Amino acid sequence: MKNENKNIEDINIGILGFGYIASGVFSLIQGQKSYLARKIKKNLNIKRIAEKDLKKIKACIKEFKDIKVSSDVNDVLQDGSIDIVVELIGGINPAYDYVYKALSSGKYVVTANKDLIANRGGELLAAAERNNVDILFEASVGGGIPIIGPLKSSLASNNISKIVGIVNGTTNYILTRMEKNNLSFDDALKKAQELGYAEKVNPSSDIEGYDAACKLAILSSIAFNSRVTLNDVYREGITDVSSDDIKNALDMGYRIKLLAIGIEENSQISVRVHPALIPMGHILASIEDTFNAVYVYGNYVGEIMSYGRGAGDKPTASSVVGDIIKIARNFDRKKKGIIYGCSCFEDKKFKSIDDTISKFYILMDVVDKPGVLARIAEVFGRNLVSINSMIQKQTDKEKSARLIFITHEVVNKNLYKSISEISKLDVVNKVLSVIRVEDLS
Amino acid sequence: MKNENKNIEDINIGILGFGYIASGVFSLIQGQKSYLARKIKKNLNIKRIAEKDLKKIKACIKEFKDIKVSSDVNDVLQDGSIDIVVELIGGINPAYDYVYKALSSGKYVVTANKDLIANRGGELLAAAERNNVDILFEASVGGGIPIIGPLKSSLASNNISKIVGIVNGTTNYILTRMEKNNLSFDDALKKAQELGYAEKVNPSSDIEGYDAACKLAILSSIAFNSRVTLNDVYREGITDVSSDDIKNALDMGYRIKLLAIGIEENSQISVRVHPALIPMGHILASIEDTFNAVYVYGNYVGEIMSYGRGAGDKPTASSVVGDIIKIARNFDRKKKGIIYGCSCFEDKKFKSIDDTISKFYILMDVVDKPGVLARIAEVFGRNLVSINSMIQKQTDKEKSARLIFITHEVVNKNLYKSISEISKLDVVNKVLSVIRVEDLS
Repeated sequence: MKNENKNIEDINIGILGFGYIASGVFSLIQGQKSYLARKIKKNLNIKRIAEKDLKKIKACIKEFKDIKVSSDVNDVLQDGSIDIVVELIGGINPAYDYVYKALSSGKYVVTANKDLIANRGGELLAAAERNNVDILFEASVGGGIPIIGPLKSSLASNNISKIVGIVNGTTNYILTRMEKNNLSFDDALKKAQELGYAEKVNPSSDIEGYDAACKLAILSSIAFNSRVTLNDVYREGITDVSSDDIKNALDMGYRIKLLAIGIEENSQISVRVHPALIPMGHILASIEDTFNAVYVYGNYVGEIMSYGRGAGDKPTASSVVGDIIKIARNFDRKKKGIIYGCSCFEDKKFKSIDDTISKFYILMDVVDKPGVLARIAEVFGRNLVSINSMIQKQTDKEKSARLIFITHEVVNKNLYKSISEISKLDVVNKVLSVIRVEDLS
Repeated sequence: MKNENKNIEDINIGILGFGYIASGVFSLIQGQKSYLARKIKKNLNIKRIAEKDLKKIKACIKEFKDIKVSSDVNDVLQDGSIDIVVELIGGINPAYDYVYKALSSGKYVVTANKDLIANRGGELLAAAERNNVDILFEASVGGGIPIIGPLKSSLASNNISKIVGIVNGTTNYILTRMEKNNLSFDDALKKAQELGYAEKVNPSSDIEGYDAACKLAILSSIAFNSRVTLNDVYREGITDVSSDDIKNALDMGYRIKLLAIGIEENSQISVRVHPALIPMGHILASIEDTFNAVYVYGNYVGEIMSYGRGAGDKPTASSVVGDIIKIARNFDRKKKGIIYGCSCFEDKKFKSIDDTISKFYILMDVVDKPGVLARIAEVFGRNLVSINSMIQKQTDKEKSARLIFITHEVVNKNLYKSISEISKLDVVNKVLSVIRVEDLS
């Protein structure tokens, strides 16, 4: 018997996949076993682990002879004594099938898999409900930050109108270092890769905003009670943000962050991930390096924010084991039950990015001669783009100048059309940057 | 039938006390009734309200003829059909008896009562456990900020070593306005009273730190798994913080905040509420006006922070109804159950404030003549108080100067002894301020 306390019940856990996060989960459960047993009055018993690469696993668990390891996930999925399957394989396939099978056989599932939930969460939550169990995924957003649990319980009484998150640590690190160390995007990315914050081979999931978009889809589904998938999210990455943009923003009292923004207005959902200038005085502007933060606006709670480490094996393990504890605490094998269930009881429409209203920062390189501003202003005016402020900066090149515009609120499609026309003017060398401005008020 | 959806079960609620918070809870539940029913698949049915002053209640609920109002709490407590008692009377007595009775008759209890939980929470949690129900009190700390729920569930896998909170909005408002509007403590307090942020007759619960100390006792009990009551908390208020202190702090890159600090080290708990200089760059320094924030350090999650409105009827109602939802969501009248239960399974010792180690800021008015510093430094040195920096400022008065010291880490009792000796030196006119410095690193 591995039970630390013979008077309390074992909750049998099977882990699928044994990479970086799983080894954190393993070390947490094994390292704090007696602490957890005393706290939740259940014994968290890792019974089986399935991992293709058995070498990964052997070194880690060799002292735990009672844990059965296998390269076949079915050894976990078909073990009727397993109560909770912890899916840490990542990606949509084959994880979806494994999780579906686990739920269908009445096992609870805990996962950190944002791709899976952002793309096929609805089907899995429905499968869980049919089988009177649940799938929990706190670790899929914001690493160790408790945000899904609070949205589903403590804040559940609110109508949530808005979520604004800095939910990708890699891009936040890059943007922070571009500012603080005066680095180009490429150099900051290289630094992030050296430190293991960005993927070496293909960092696009982070820097193109896919990771943030998955997380936004998950948060928005819960906040707005209506299913949002990755495909519904408008997405721009940070690869086009330049050192000049960051300096210009600073000069005007702004900082550039990759924001994940979800808004519900008149039963329409707007979900978008893009870089944005935010006012220096706003608390989100002070979220630096790999830290994450999620801002939520509810009709009763007002504005609240959660902040912490958005990645890493230990913070992520904290959330995974937190979910296991939620299931284990009042676990009843004879009478299973849904903990939170699916909160998507509505089916709201999406607002297209074209119809969304934003303020914009625009940087362009123009010919430095009289009349240029008038021609640009004519295009903006004709497209109903109203300018809030304009700054002209000299450049090193002869006969060229930089113009920085900040617009008032404009309909996105009008802005796009005006930029397209302005790009073709013979007095405009290049439109260098078009980035939204979010006042967050 | 008041049931919004005839296919779902009623959860019957009885409210004790109908003041400011209760009317917020009432308006949330009645105003979002069908939204909540669709979300949690239970109908939250306010069945009875007990309030001494029936005038308070009548205007508010006259359109709801099915709700029974009474001036006798027993009408709620003795109604066998009431599932959840929401205690919003406040204070320890008679609230304790009412809550105890409710739990003893197998009713769940939700409360916002920090005094009750900070002083007698242990007894009530034990009573709940004996009756296989629970008492939830998210609203007792941080208004609408979800912090107790996350500590009891999402973060439960961590060993928490430290909590640092700004948990009293009144004092944070006063300190913010003293800095931003250059006000004296008295003028800032007056402004807080005009705005309803501070009690008009007796603001001491806030400004003397009792409110923050109650909240710290509650948070620390959960974080350190060991009962902490109000009496265990060392407490200093902000009444002695002067405009000069705030200016001096700013000059040195610090901001003064009333902190609630709980630390567990070597199974010893240190709990204290006092003003402190904190570095301007730390995120807690950016928490302004009536906002609250709680910082938590866990061995897996690392550092996380929750931020939001710490008071007000609507944020507090958000937390109260969040707790009701936790109970209602999987409610089973035949088989009740404990949701979180009491987490105090250990009995740790307390570290006295005398033995605590801190850095200090000290402001003194001294005679401006040669040799003064040497005499002060001698006292510090003899008491093992090591000085990190010293600034001398001239004053308007002839032959007097101001000395500002920042110490290295010192044992509190040694600092006290040195201050007592220094106060008696003939070259020292007055020791004006002694405030701790917390680097929060």
